[in-house]
Amino acid sequence: MKIDGAWHRALESDGWTVRVLDQRRLPHEVAWLELRSLADAAHAIRDMTVRGAPLIGVAAAWGVALALRDEASDAALAAACATLAATRPTAVNLRWALDEARAALAAVPPADRAEAARALAARIADDEVARCDAIGRHGAALIEAAAHGAARGRAVQVLTHCNAGWLATGDWGTALAPVFRAHEAGIDVHVWVDETRPRSQGALTAWELAQHGVPHTFIVDNAGGHLMQHDRVDLCIVGTDRTTRRGDVCNKIGTYLKALAARAHGVPFHVAAPSPSIDWDMVHGKDVPIEERDGDEVRFVPGTAADGRLARVRVVAGASPVANPAFDVTPAHLVTSLITERGVCAATEAGLIGLFPERARHLGGAA
Amino acid sequence: MKIDGAWHRALESDGWTVRVLDQRRLPHEVAWLELRSLADAAHAIRDMTVRGAPLIGVAAAWGVALALRDEASDAALAAACATLAATRPTAVNLRWALDEARAALAAVPPADRAEAARALAARIADDEVARCDAIGRHGAALIEAAAHGAARGRAVQVLTHCNAGWLATGDWGTALAPVFRAHEAGIDVHVWVDETRPRSQGALTAWELAQHGVPHTFIVDNAGGHLMQHDRVDLCIVGTDRTTRRGDVCNKIGTYLKALAARAHGVPFHVAAPSPSIDWDMVHGKDVPIEERDGDEVRFVPGTAADGRLARVRVVAGASPVANPAFDVTPAHLVTSLITERGVCAATEAGLIGLFPERARHLGGAA
Repeated sequence: MKIDGAWHRALESDGWTVRVLDQRRLPHEVAWLELRSLADAAHAIRDMTVRGAPLIGVAAAWGVALALRDEASDAALAAACATLAATRPTAVNLRWALDEARAALAAVPPADRAEAARALAARIADDEVARCDAIGRHGAALIEAAAHGAARGRAVQVLTHCNAGWLATGDWGTALAPVFRAHEAGIDVHVWVDETRPRSQGALTAWELAQHGVPHTFIVDNAGGHLMQHDRVDLCIVGTDRTTRRGDVCNKIGTYLKALAARAHGVPFHVAAPSPSIDWDMVHGKDVPIEERDGDEVRFVPGTAADGRLARVRVVAGASPVANPAFDVTPAHLVTSLITERGVCAATEAGLIGLFPERARHLGGAA
Repeated sequence: MKIDGAWHRALESDGWTVRVLDQRRLPHEVAWLELRSLADAAHAIRDMTVRGAPLIGVAAAWGVALALRDEASDAALAAACATLAATRPTAVNLRWALDEARAALAAVPPADRAEAARALAARIADDEVARCDAIGRHGAALIEAAAHGAARGRAVQVLTHCNAGWLATGDWGTALAPVFRAHEAGIDVHVWVDETRPRSQGALTAWELAQHGVPHTFIVDNAGGHLMQHDRVDLCIVGTDRTTRRGDVCNKIGTYLKALAARAHGVPFHVAAPSPSIDWDMVHGKDVPIEERDGDEVRFVPGTAADGRLARVRVVAGASPVANPAFDVTPAHLVTSLITERGVCAATEAGLIGLFPERARHLGGAA
């Protein structure tokens, strides 16, 4: 995707050089940070220098590789995976990437492990982008269908929450990939961009869309219900940090409120879910661990001050307690469809197994 | 209500001296501004120095009085009402107060008008507080019932959106009056306070509750659905800027999303509606004019900087368009009850007419 016209990924590697866009400073400053160690990778994930379920999976794979470059023993591999797994609890992509790494690398002699881990991390990054590309193709068809269905002489109106764009995945994005592709195919599409407090990832989404020339409008999280009530949203597309095998969708806090509004107004609610975001071992969304993050994310809002420098302001007085659950769960019955790299399916176990039949062997406790 | 232990109203008057708390600077600074003219009053309403549907009605009545002190002709009265009516379109209290003033003052000889207008403004302010007091009594019974019903050894959990407290009304508040009264009656009550972007009036609510010692937790607007899904909200109470005669509730943007979540989880959704907030001439909520405010309210977040001074930061990059609808409409069927100064009723025309039978004569076009 483009920054000032030049193509980039949100995590770029060249041999052992790994650099990431510092998403804490976007959209206000474009700054790259180099990851040189396991500690760097773990810190970048924990404090959301890198964020987005797919991208933290990629960053975790690089964290394993950087750890093994220093020390390639079985113990070091186990310790690296444990450190990275503890950074953030909700997105299953993190666990998926670590499981991939552990399974692939345990069988490799220690002398070859670092190089194997490096190659694996690069492959996971490429695979993630390939999945996003496929999701873009499948999802663009939904936008195109809405364009024909609408026939109102206006743009197709997509609402999205949080950032599930190229910053969250490396390139293209999950929820935004269909938008980018539809836009490139000449479909008239406009995106309502939820701010997504407390971390305001909507500002990342707006910045991505602006860089790419996609028409969009930034709104507060409170506005989406009103817009749907007034027939100003044709479809919602969001990403997911973990989707259970029956199709319950855990995603950024506030997603659920938009799904309820979409249902109330007959607006299709689609979830872009690459397979590493699917937790085949979990049936019910209520079992997803919901990360409770630091209340200071709510108390303070970062941005640029009048002098253009990064700053933050306190919005709530010090005497007030704060709660900051970072995710919520949208039950499958509110999800119109899941957009995976293999195609679009119903948010049901049967729907998912239809696209991923190799997962059928895991059937058992599932309802 | 209390500021640092001393009792105040959000608009205080002594003879012709009228001063208001500058709500743009709260909760960060406690600053009083004097209103000396019609222009001062109109400006204070428009830029939300004073805000909250009941309080802008009071401020408008004072605006009329200040205008008539300068010039008490019929033309001046008409011009003052026109100027004030144009400040904000959504809250019906503004129109109600101006209708009251026009009706009462047109019959008064110009020589006596200024003094009559002054007395009227003071009376409207007192009446507003009396209505809040009554709403507090009626609403506290709902909280008390929830306390008995809950019997879970935990506080009654109330969720509110925006600020419908003493800052919005002069004293006590509408939605918060039941909370303050229940708290004073020894009921264990805790309030989830929605931030309410873009203007973050939740910070005012949190500050009020902290000043009064009421347990509360500040949350982003995105969190309420998750909390209701996890049985952490017993009832919602919000205010209203205009409620139609069939019970559709126009209130701060985002209220509708919370009402949808409340319905999905069987959480009672109450609206505190003093009679001046009821538009007896309007049947359907879709006819309420929704104010579209300056996009800079969304682009910039005000608060206190590291040095303690008021500052603001830009949260979205300049290339992105912004939309800022300030209110939305919750249809009557999602409203459990209306809490008025005369008691609690269903959000239906029959419910309202049962409490306000003198309004039955207006029946006609109503469904």
